[in-house]
Amino acid sequence: MNFCSNCGSSNIGRRVPPGDHLPRYICDACGEIFYHNPKMVVGCIAQWAGKILLVKRAIEPRYGWWTLPAGYMENQETAGQGAAREAREEALADIEIGMLYTHFSIPHINQVYIMYLAHLIGPKFGAGEESLAAELFSEEEIPWDELAFPVMRKTLELYYEDRRNGYFRCHSGDITYENHDRRQALEYAVSSSP
Amino acid sequence: MNFCSNCGSSNIGRRVPPGDHLPRYICDACGEIFYHNPKMVVGCIAQWAGKILLVKRAIEPRYGWWTLPAGYMENQETAGQGAAREAREEALADIEIGMLYTHFSIPHINQVYIMYLAHLIGPKFGAGEESLAAELFSEEEIPWDELAFPVMRKTLELYYEDRRNGYFRCHSGDITYENHDRRQALEYAVSSSP
Repeated sequence: MNFCSNCGSSNIGRRVPPGDHLPRYICDACGEIFYHNPKMVVGCIAQWAGKILLVKRAIEPRYGWWTLPAGYMENQETAGQGAAREAREEALADIEIGMLYTHFSIPHINQVYIMYLAHLIGPKFGAGEESLAAELFSEEEIPWDELAFPVMRKTLELYYEDRRNGYFRCHSGDITYENHDRRQALEYAVSSSP
Repeated sequence: MNFCSNCGSSNIGRRVPPGDHLPRYICDACGEIFYHNPKMVVGCIAQWAGKILLVKRAIEPRYGWWTLPAGYMENQETAGQGAAREAREEALADIEIGMLYTHFSIPHINQVYIMYLAHLIGPKFGAGEESLAAELFSEEEIPWDELAFPVMRKTLELYYEDRRNGYFRCHSGDITYENHDRRQALEYAVSSSP
């Protein structure tokens, strides 16, 4: 942050405002305070005939790797609407959103992943602008070694575990790095609804 | 947005960037694109001896009204850590976070409310800097007509309904205004985990 987006001054400080507890960017010319908060990534496990829909990424990060359709939640939409929009954009798929399924905080990248169970409304899908491919996979067919993000792998592991148990629960948790060092193992803390 | 926070130019346009689908603020001098996304409010129903903890707001909006301890999630924390932090700040309470309980999108204010079940670690609490009071309430004692926000009323209604049924489920949904006209009735869409 180099300039104030309100008054254009370059007189930007970083300190804890009165009554606050964290340092913020503050414009020392006009007094504007700038807050930066985590973002939500919304997506879904879209099911059809026992299989689930994955997309192959046509953008960085993780170009060419597989993932569940998901993306940043936008203003003026609900989390479910955002998840359905991402399935439409990335996989050209019309889906019906079901239950909130996994909710993961990933504090080192300031993101929360919110994934829903969903159903394809019909067997129509394809590669959207940000995808190289969109395909349905059975559990055996899932490209486990080519999944783009640990949060998606964890979500899929929970999904198949629940499916084997015949019962889907809502799971929430955190994905963190030990010692905040990315070269070290990821840690997963998950708690599940009864 | 009057000035680019990157280069200080006042040459700010608003249009859909290539490959995007929504209009964004774009600096026509340096090319920086500015995204604005919904924010998360994280909080809890902190339980102790059959009662739950409410705080009376010492800040606007809704100064003097009661609510569950909650506030904006910050960067570098998990949703659960944020909920615990807010209980500490607003109600001087140490809590243990339990299951993810309600998850409400409120698209007309670009917020998602994420509320956890929690337990006070001890019967110690009080009014934090942003609160006029903090008190434990039984269901009969809750000041239903002085609750600050519809999302908190809905969360409390679900809580007491589940408690009567002897079973807490995770609830997710949306709170919207009919026709986006705030004078009209709020609409609630809630779906619950099995």
